Amino acid sequence: MPYVNIKLTREQEPITAEQKTALIRGVTDLLVEVVRRGPKTTVVVIDEIDTDNYGIGGETVTVLRGQKR
Amino acid sequence: MPYVNIKLTREQEPITAEQKTALIRGVTDLLVEVVRRGPKTTVVVIDEIDTDNYGIGGETVTVLRGQKR
Amino acid sequence: MPYVNIKLTREQEPITAEQKTALIRGVTDLLVEVVRRGPKTTVVVIDEIDTDNYGIGGETVTVLRGQKR
Amino acid sequence: MPYVNIKLTREQEPITAEQKTALIRGVTDLLVEVVRRGPKTTVVVIDEIDTDNYGIGGETVTVLRGQKR
Amino acid sequence: MPYVNIKLTREQEPITAEQKTALIRGVTDLLVEVVRRGPKTTVVVIDEIDTDNYGIGGETVTVLRGQKR
Amino acid sequence: MPYVNIKLTREQEPITAEQKTALIRGVTDLLVEVVRRGPKTTVVVIDEIDTDNYGIGGETVTVLRGQKR
Repeated sequence: MPYVNIKLTREQEPITAEQKTALIRGVTDLLVEVVRRGPKTTVVVIDEIDTDNYGIGGETVTVLRGQKR
Repeated sequence: MPYVNIKLTREQEPITAEQKTALIRGVTDLLVEVVRRGPKTTVVVIDEIDTDNYGIGGETVTVLRGQKR
Repeated sequence: MPYVNIKLTREQEPITAEQKTALIRGVTDLLVEVVRRGPKTTVVVIDEIDTDNYGIGGETVTVLRGQKR
Repeated sequence: MPYVNIKLTREQEPITAEQKTALIRGVTDLLVEVVRRGPKTTVVVIDEIDTDNYGIGGETVTVLRGQKR
Repeated sequence: MPYVNIKLTREQEPITAEQKTALIRGVTDLLVEVVRRGPKTTVVVIDEIDTDNYGIGGETVTVLRGQKR
Repeated sequence: MPYVNIKLTREQEPITAEQKTALIRGVTDLLVEVVRRGPKTTVVVIDEIDTDNYGIGGETVTVLRGQKR
């Protein structure tokens, strides 16, 4: 039954369908293992966010990525 | 006053502006009927999610749609 | 399949289990009628929010309720 | 960096602090493994929802639990 | 530590990267000032919503914008 | 029009009604200043989260608070 929402940034190298499936399965399995919930009606929604729209510590991820280079 | 968020998948046949209006009005009316809340400041936000990004029971909707064919 | 989140304030007169069921069924039916989605895996989550924690137009609902008296 | 929100019902047997830690670590690790994101700023928020407030297929989890007995 | 999600409509004049940074910094600073939370791990996510997908008082913002003209 | 959701932990010293009002007003004002949106229909919802239910970097805030002592 649980509902899970994952928000991560959309980077130059896109997240593949395989990775999305791995995230969805991984979270669904984790909820069964840890709290015996689901898996049949477990819903997982992945939101890909532009790096300009995701801020950490007052800076956008666009700027944070630039600072690391 | 209530706030409602609806998440549904973006399929080949797009959801039309008329359908979006019908969802927004329908939910707004429902909240007035059932709990006498709103309608003036009722906010409804519709998120359209790629079928690769929406998982049910550990499978993406992309895969689930394929299995049904 | 859709996922719906409804946020409304927790007022002096509580929302009953019957009202919650009516909201859940009403939204689930609406999504079938308007966009032919669900209903088997439609998920609806209702969040009840303290009136101090819900703001409209810069005022809490606690204050807005008081102003209407 | 990712942000994850997990919503699950508050049942008679409460979810323990150990289980919450296992969910938070499990999701944080999964995001590192699958998409190399985080883990330092990965945020996970767990919402426990009353069974009256969580609906699947038009029924509250309260009713669904009763039907299974 | 706080997590903030801002949803606003995507209008003809786009929200610039500078405005997004100002929103992210402004909210991050506000949380430090008011409740002494953060700022290092404060996360802010901005969602830009099509005007057809955002409803207020039972009307889409697309329609509300048209009515104001 | 914008919608803002703020999630922060429920600590030993509770967040007062005055602080909640200051957060709601501050965010509402910020959105007017930066993007000229609102303020009449701006909605702000504050969620207070148990420290066991909020994880950063794989640890709950309960544990992180303990480590700082």
